[in-house]
Amino acid sequence: MSKKPLILVVNDDSIYAPGIRSLIKVMNDFGDVVVVAPKNPQSGMSHAISLNNPLIYDKVIIDNGPQIEYSCNGTPSDCVKIAFNKILTRKPDLCVSGINHGSNSSINVIYSGTMAAALEASISGVPSIGFSLLNYSSDAEFSLSEKVARIIVSNFFKNLLPKDICLNVNIPNISVNKFNGIKICRQAKANWIEEFDERKNPAGKTYYWLTGKFFNNDDNNDTDEWALINNYASIVPVKYDLTDYNFISKLEFLNNAK
Amino acid sequence: MSKKPLILVVNDDSIYAPGIRSLIKVMNDFGDVVVVAPKNPQSGMSHAISLNNPLIYDKVIIDNGPQIEYSCNGTPSDCVKIAFNKILTRKPDLCVSGINHGSNSSINVIYSGTMAAALEASISGVPSIGFSLLNYSSDAEFSLSEKVARIIVSNFFKNLLPKDICLNVNIPNISVNKFNGIKICRQAKANWIEEFDERKNPAGKTYYWLTGKFFNNDDNNDTDEWALINNYASIVPVKYDLTDYNFISKLEFLNNAK
Repeated sequence: MSKKPLILVVNDDSIYAPGIRSLIKVMNDFGDVVVVAPKNPQSGMSHAISLNNPLIYDKVIIDNGPQIEYSCNGTPSDCVKIAFNKILTRKPDLCVSGINHGSNSSINVIYSGTMAAALEASISGVPSIGFSLLNYSSDAEFSLSEKVARIIVSNFFKNLLPKDICLNVNIPNISVNKFNGIKICRQAKANWIEEFDERKNPAGKTYYWLTGKFFNNDDNNDTDEWALINNYASIVPVKYDLTDYNFISKLEFLNNAK
Repeated sequence: MSKKPLILVVNDDSIYAPGIRSLIKVMNDFGDVVVVAPKNPQSGMSHAISLNNPLIYDKVIIDNGPQIEYSCNGTPSDCVKIAFNKILTRKPDLCVSGINHGSNSSINVIYSGTMAAALEASISGVPSIGFSLLNYSSDAEFSLSEKVARIIVSNFFKNLLPKDICLNVNIPNISVNKFNGIKICRQAKANWIEEFDERKNPAGKTYYWLTGKFFNNDDNNDTDEWALINNYASIVPVKYDLTDYNFISKLEFLNNAK
């Protein structure tokens, strides 16, 4: 039986996306790799799960690497759940998600299928790392992302990182020689201002495409946005306890109200 | 021009769900109500947004209340975004979401469309409250939920709550006379253990329905799970900054690695 670590690889851009092919290639150097990833693109699916549709998965061969791969018709979170419960024969040592085509920094983490998959693993007690490159195009250049993934994952397998981490890693869209290094950050306070692109269908009915502009309201140098603008890769440790502890004491006057 | 507060009402169970009809009825006593809610059920959609499908909304009349209502083909988060940007003529004073048919306590908050809609409002600077009743059935009894909503919203409009809140309110499935009151809580550490219900389609292909069992690993009396089991309505203040600040110092050795 293999003594290598077991690594689950997942993403949201689909099993055919260049970003996941790149991440699989790097992970093959660290352990036995099982890929369970969506059959179709699932960007913006956040932590959605399939309550009203059944799930199907199929073993697939996409390239000639040593990894074992399955495509699934579900969301990124579905992929992790079905991997843990139906596909993997033991608990993985690490779950990595991505490399996403596009940023998941600051508020984007909320909408991200990539980071939802990582958080899903973390909820089940599996350490996880999501990787995202700040380039949406299908021909993005992943050299720097691969370098950053190698640094973080090699530290993980040297037991230098806490065992219960979920990391949101974003990589600037620059060449390796312009890279300033890794920076540990907090999530910047930013938001999107939506702009709905209004059109008419052939029957004259109005419909809208969701678009928008990103506004960073937080230019402090401890944020992920600051790091990325300054040619650092940002690492934000994230968690699934959404409690805002600062508000607990301000609300206590409501205790026992009835 | 009306001097009443403007209240946006949204949900994830669809505009036709008994829970939202109940919440609209209560909100009509507090201000001018505009409803923008999904045309079809969106449970488990979390913070998903429609990047690959256009959005359509329609003015609808469902009952004889004074509220103005729109149904939308998108997710709960889409509903909030299109309400703020295309439908409402001014920023609402409050966004309420629900009353959800089923619990959104502890880890369920992550998968919840109801709470994603509330968080979406909060991201745009609008205070928000999500309400969920611990009863999935379509003929659930909402009397206690309505009572709890009245207590919290009346305190909000008396300016007794902070202006930048997002509250996750869960209501036990009990009659009003068994109610012990409101309790301010933190999110319990709990998770689902999935059980995939395996079936064969007529062509012999295996498919799976996602089901599972809920495990509460945290029976401390400051949690939402404790409150609900003990006939309290739980209020957990929530936030969309997912940074796990406890890990920042443990990762700092990676700063500047390249």
